[in-house]
Amino acid sequence: MPQSETVTACLIIIGNEILSGRTQDTNLAHLSVVLNELGVRMTEARVIPDVEQTIVDTVNHCRARFDYVFTTGGIGPTHDDITADSIARAFGIEVEEHPEVAALIRKREAPPQVMASRLRMARIPVGATLIENPTGGPPGFQVENVFVMAGVPMVMQAMASTFDRAKLPGGKPVRSRTVGAFLGESEVADDLAAIQNDFPEIDLGSYPFYRASGYGTNLVMRGTDEDQLEAMLVRVSRMITDRGKIAHPGGAPAEA
Amino acid sequence: MPQSETVTACLIIIGNEILSGRTQDTNLAHLSVVLNELGVRMTEARVIPDVEQTIVDTVNHCRARFDYVFTTGGIGPTHDDITADSIARAFGIEVEEHPEVAALIRKREAPPQVMASRLRMARIPVGATLIENPTGGPPGFQVENVFVMAGVPMVMQAMASTFDRAKLPGGKPVRSRTVGAFLGESEVADDLAAIQNDFPEIDLGSYPFYRASGYGTNLVMRGTDEDQLEAMLVRVSRMITDRGKIAHPGGAPAEA
Repeated sequence: MPQSETVTACLIIIGNEILSGRTQDTNLAHLSVVLNELGVRMTEARVIPDVEQTIVDTVNHCRARFDYVFTTGGIGPTHDDITADSIARAFGIEVEEHPEVAALIRKREAPPQVMASRLRMARIPVGATLIENPTGGPPGFQVENVFVMAGVPMVMQAMASTFDRAKLPGGKPVRSRTVGAFLGESEVADDLAAIQNDFPEIDLGSYPFYRASGYGTNLVMRGTDEDQLEAMLVRVSRMITDRGKIAHPGGAPAEA
Repeated sequence: MPQSETVTACLIIIGNEILSGRTQDTNLAHLSVVLNELGVRMTEARVIPDVEQTIVDTVNHCRARFDYVFTTGGIGPTHDDITADSIARAFGIEVEEHPEVAALIRKREAPPQVMASRLRMARIPVGATLIENPTGGPPGFQVENVFVMAGVPMVMQAMASTFDRAKLPGGKPVRSRTVGAFLGESEVADDLAAIQNDFPEIDLGSYPFYRASGYGTNLVMRGTDEDQLEAMLVRVSRMITDRGKIAHPGGAPAEA
């Protein structure tokens, strides 16, 4: 697709626990799918440590290069939650206790010291728009094209469920077709290159798999034009059957 | 820890299929753990699309900033496997058929056209060192401080299993202690900040969890000094028991 039509996004995953390997990130895959339905293409992701200068530099670099930037992680109540302050510094703005968020947090009673810690989650950069949190916890927030979200997947997913085309104007969603075959990548490489050449606007990827039942390749076509996708699917499927193999729509079955 | 003692690494995950959300990356978490045992700290990760200029720019940016750079993905036999050429371009060197790798590939017989495609995997930047592939497939390769590996997790893990301190001189491994409690983050935030303050060389992270049995927080201490880790663990555990809660070594149990 022409690059000019593509609305791009970058996800910045903030968290030592992802970099250490202790925690497996799942937010990237989830957010990519949500955004795609809104016509926004995940174009890059970065995993960075809980270091203020790194957050500031990464956010400033990415918000100038992508239409939207999302962050996950570091908006809780403890000393290692430095995302709100880092985002404010990146934009050169102040952080203040947001009255609406503070009121939400105060609804649940707590001893003074605990409440003071919880109120850290009401510290939001001045002028930010809130991102609703359907779990009932404190919201995320948006400053210009940067969306700051929780790192806990359940909470991040709840926040992402509130996105729509009004909040995130996008382009056309990418659609895909997948077909699998018990054929090695090398057996189809030439034909794939020729087919890709005939459909320059559709991205044709080949993904090998290895199973007890045999090895093979899943072929994934991605693009915004459904007619071209269907035409390419026919070509790829025929290429498989011409080799005397079965073309498995949706990808090769887990057990053959 | 003083930054000067830290040997750093960056992982560049090359693959549209990760960015689209179709495939869940697991290579980051695996490689982080392997490298840590060698005293190499995963300091950043990036997920980028299969676009040559993006690969070239990202590799050149990262190899100047980190002690080691690893890439995963894009070294197969098809048209969308452009990593070897992109790495060569980043270094301004040529790609040639590597005789040793070509001989390995030729051991498994195939029709001429299939063999020609498979031999694409023998195209290695001139002067690169091979990274052994214990699965028997084609190897990865190393150019200066950049290590180019397969994207399929089974193959990537096999390649990573060949790393040792001779190939990747590192510093001290990071060790960790974890203790969990059914206490909210806000209930311990103040004490955690004080404890962190007393142990500036140990990184203290707090990770909330939500379960049917209740919510709580896992506290993870990470650093290279075992004595300090033990001393910090005692402080954190006492902080939990002082609140009349049980300190769960290793993290709160899945079912309480």
